[in-house]
Amino acid sequence: MADVVVDTVASVPVAVIGAGPAGLMLAHLLGRAGVDTIVVDTRTRREIETTQRAGILEADTARDLVETGVSDRILREGHEHEGAELRFGGRPHRIHFKALVGESVWLYPQTDVFTDLADARDRDGGTVHFGVRDTEVLDVTTSAPRVRYTASDGSRHEIRAQYVVGADGSRSMCRNLVPEDRRVRYGKEYSFAWFGILAEAPMSAPELIYAHSEHGFALISRRTESVQRMYFQCRPDESADDWSDDRIWETLQARVAGQDGFRLNEGPIIEKTVLRFRSFVQEPMRWGSMALAGDAAHTVPPTGARGLNLALHDVKVLADVLLRALGSAGEAALDDYQPRALQRTWRAQNFSHWMTQLLHTAPGGSPFDLRRQLGELDNVVGTRAGQTYLAEQYTGWPVSALG
Amino acid sequence: MADVVVDTVASVPVAVIGAGPAGLMLAHLLGRAGVDTIVVDTRTRREIETTQRAGILEADTARDLVETGVSDRILREGHEHEGAELRFGGRPHRIHFKALVGESVWLYPQTDVFTDLADARDRDGGTVHFGVRDTEVLDVTTSAPRVRYTASDGSRHEIRAQYVVGADGSRSMCRNLVPEDRRVRYGKEYSFAWFGILAEAPMSAPELIYAHSEHGFALISRRTESVQRMYFQCRPDESADDWSDDRIWETLQARVAGQDGFRLNEGPIIEKTVLRFRSFVQEPMRWGSMALAGDAAHTVPPTGARGLNLALHDVKVLADVLLRALGSAGEAALDDYQPRALQRTWRAQNFSHWMTQLLHTAPGGSPFDLRRQLGELDNVVGTRAGQTYLAEQYTGWPVSALG
Repeated sequence: MADVVVDTVASVPVAVIGAGPAGLMLAHLLGRAGVDTIVVDTRTRREIETTQRAGILEADTARDLVETGVSDRILREGHEHEGAELRFGGRPHRIHFKALVGESVWLYPQTDVFTDLADARDRDGGTVHFGVRDTEVLDVTTSAPRVRYTASDGSRHEIRAQYVVGADGSRSMCRNLVPEDRRVRYGKEYSFAWFGILAEAPMSAPELIYAHSEHGFALISRRTESVQRMYFQCRPDESADDWSDDRIWETLQARVAGQDGFRLNEGPIIEKTVLRFRSFVQEPMRWGSMALAGDAAHTVPPTGARGLNLALHDVKVLADVLLRALGSAGEAALDDYQPRALQRTWRAQNFSHWMTQLLHTAPGGSPFDLRRQLGELDNVVGTRAGQTYLAEQYTGWPVSALG
Repeated sequence: MADVVVDTVASVPVAVIGAGPAGLMLAHLLGRAGVDTIVVDTRTRREIETTQRAGILEADTARDLVETGVSDRILREGHEHEGAELRFGGRPHRIHFKALVGESVWLYPQTDVFTDLADARDRDGGTVHFGVRDTEVLDVTTSAPRVRYTASDGSRHEIRAQYVVGADGSRSMCRNLVPEDRRVRYGKEYSFAWFGILAEAPMSAPELIYAHSEHGFALISRRTESVQRMYFQCRPDESADDWSDDRIWETLQARVAGQDGFRLNEGPIIEKTVLRFRSFVQEPMRWGSMALAGDAAHTVPPTGARGLNLALHDVKVLADVLLRALGSAGEAALDDYQPRALQRTWRAQNFSHWMTQLLHTAPGGSPFDLRRQLGELDNVVGTRAGQTYLAEQYTGWPVSALG
């Protein structure tokens, strides 16, 4: 590669691959401490802004966005949820997070988090290149790693950095730089997916509803006052186009039906997608001068709403570690990253797996498991400890509890 | 059957099939209220007394034995355990039941519970026939059910009752009296079993140790001061005879090994058995004039120590219901039995399944699941709510919480 001609060479302490929330938040946190970054992403800003993703933020995550000066828009446009409903056996059971653990969660779409972070980078003069191609990360096992990419105008560029961060999402190229014989990939596939819709309809409930039924799982959320976000468990090979609006509403209504006569408010469906998911962790999360963060290192099923929160936790720890590494501590400071990030990762992996197993019906699953799930749901909602055990995981463990 | 000649005909309000703890405790509770029973069992008293079974009693169960006048021997010879150890990642984590939920459990072998109950029946003049054969239960869909059996001396007998209780254990004949098209059997098989030993050795720990390791599960308990009870996860098709003492100790030591240097005290192994187990529930628990109780209606994996406690809870509810049915309420009172017994059954089914999945390694299980289990164990021991969620299930839900 040494003989490739590039148009520009830039030097920066930290190069970041991936301009999703993890990459941009890292750049923001480092920028606040006076450390420059260059962030590159193969996607355009428009592509990222229009890809519907998660929508639940831990209170800690929301606070971080406000207190580190990204934006306080979440306080104005987000919705604080003090609880959520577990619906099973045809009955609603509210888990009152605020009363149980003193924390709420915030309904605020990931696309809005991204926009806030991208605007903050613009405002603070940070460098972010969207829509690049041919990204290459070189020499990560040396103390002089480099990143090469082709900008959207066709020009070739090289970034010389002290550290590279792979925040390039669930199809990460960076994680493949860890040699096969030096990495372990942990994973689990699920026999179901989520059918997600956006519908122009009035709200059906003030808080999220996680519904267990013999027909399968459903999740009732919202995007705005007039646009609702709903999901129901489907086969992974389902095609969204095969589903008429009528069939979708019939399916959703059956999964939330109950003795209380609860019904969803229906309306035109303006988007429908089948979302497949899996559990995944790659170790190590650091390789030479490179660290992996967010989905590049681990993905979780969406049921526990952990993905975005876990990614932002990674970069919070990573920013701290990188600042020390760039200061007097030197590269040894990076050794702290994986132990601190991994403990939360595996706890979140388990929580996401647990919520998924608790609420979905496995295709071909036994009647025993269906009844046992109802026993488990009874155990969870039946006592304060059970409710708290769920609430403290759903709202996120305090950083102080884990490091 | 009407033309079969019997030597004696006895009439009694309640006939009980099965003289294990469930059957005898029911007879005891009814006897205290002045209701006579006849209990029959195909096993001899000696056979029941020498079959090693569970050893952990909920505080409620222990109190019931004392307060209903069965025996206070548990207070003198049992051991109150205020906690238990979860051992994983090579480290001990104590769950302090008493501090968390105000309850202890009692280490007191099921064989001793049986002996206390059989002695109480003798003392109170109750009728129990051990070692019978050819037991038949007739006419359970009428209000005049009958039981026929051949006594150990070869004489034939008939019991005419108002109600029959099937407490005849995990291979229940009674439950087959519910017609196939009117019953549902829920079940789950496990891909592992327990290898159980009795060893003449000093105690290794004051409380039970539930050990998770990459090699599989182990449980360290005791029978007496000088005889220890230990188990380790093995293949269901394992033959106990294939295992030398050395190999057994090596296996057990590897599963409890840790950074603290903990080691089991070894000694001669005086009994070794492979215990297979499954999860099982039959519904309905009541059919006509017959009710099922304990293992006849449901079995659980031993991991959560629920089996005996659940059986004794069944008969506590059933005694209450039968007394009302025999009083002014009539047969309609029996309608209350299943709803009250089933809720606890499914909660206990889930707890037993959860503890089993949490601590055992599935043969061929993925590295993901092993790491996830450690994440789950971290979640459980990491907060007071997690510990309490386990403790309240392990020590048993208060009757008031469930009915």
